[in-house]
Amino acid sequence: MKDFVIIGHKAVTAPFSLNDLPGAAGRMDILCRCVNAALFLSHDLRRDVRVYLVLKGEPVPPKLIRFDGAEVRYLSPDERSAASLIKKALEKNVQEFWTESTPGVYIRKGTFSDLLVELGKKIIYLREDGENVRRMTFDEPLFVLGDHLGLTDDEEKTIETNEHEILSVGPLSLHADHCIVLLHNEMDRVEKHI
Amino acid sequence: MKDFVIIGHKAVTAPFSLNDLPGAAGRMDILCRCVNAALFLSHDLRRDVRVYLVLKGEPVPPKLIRFDGAEVRYLSPDERSAASLIKKALEKNVQEFWTESTPGVYIRKGTFSDLLVELGKKIIYLREDGENVRRMTFDEPLFVLGDHLGLTDDEEKTIETNEHEILSVGPLSLHADHCIVLLHNEMDRVEKHI
Repeated sequence: MKDFVIIGHKAVTAPFSLNDLPGAAGRMDILCRCVNAALFLSHDLRRDVRVYLVLKGEPVPPKLIRFDGAEVRYLSPDERSAASLIKKALEKNVQEFWTESTPGVYIRKGTFSDLLVELGKKIIYLREDGENVRRMTFDEPLFVLGDHLGLTDDEEKTIETNEHEILSVGPLSLHADHCIVLLHNEMDRVEKHI
Repeated sequence: MKDFVIIGHKAVTAPFSLNDLPGAAGRMDILCRCVNAALFLSHDLRRDVRVYLVLKGEPVPPKLIRFDGAEVRYLSPDERSAASLIKKALEKNVQEFWTESTPGVYIRKGTFSDLLVELGKKIIYLREDGENVRRMTFDEPLFVLGDHLGLTDDEEKTIETNEHEILSVGPLSLHADHCIVLLHNEMDRVEKHI
């Protein structure tokens, strides 16, 4: 299983309008594009991928949302489609454990740190000054990416208390969803020996 | 200059609702994501890139739209933002020559073939069975990508009457915007010797 965690520092934790994802929904557009980049092939889904969104925006943070590539339904590649499933999840009466809101989409209360404990894997954290990702191999990887604000010092510290590795996907600073595309390509090439 | 041409076979050629890009606007969401992938860095734009959209949908096809990375304004990374600029361009009284609709966004009547003649460059066409893109170098490249329908036989023939090369970005079939991310990464790495 390939796990991607994306932290949305302003992403709202209550239902929102689908017509203003960057503004009123707290850059929810970024998280939606990450769901797309992590799960979509052309005319297919990556079934060996789970995407975790950490929502830290108002009014009742933090919440965690999971998209499971093996089970997810009603998801199209456009931002609004992922946003609609996130919104439906936020309509749930959320608990400390995962509740399914639509097929393959789950929500719970919880912090970034709670999620790392639950997953219990080595963390691969992307940063411009990390080691070059090319030709590395990954076994059941867990990738952590930030939104437009990157990661906070506290989040970096949380990562550093766990087993972790800092990698870079290229020489320029890129959006999180573009980084995910590059990570998948790297893994695809290694798996297919290309 | 790096040029990207994306063909939208169903993309509408009249103003459309921003609330249904995949449906009523004819998979306009795909073209919007391609604009994002081609132009955006984290907190910056790629100023050496031009994106050309070929709109072949109803009611008055074909139309060509150009986003110029060096000049474009009012563009955010979300799909709706690119869609809003495309919509504004489609509100213009369109001619056989380029007209600017908003800063850095231009529109004209014209076919895919007209555009290739205007650009007058060797065409790099992406297909799963193409040659591996890694470590290639590109001088003023022109990349052509299809939407969810790929390219038609006629479009392939148009390409084949020009100087062209068929390349592949990886072992799996990917969305056009994901291919653009991979092409940029390849060029970034070659330019920065990484």
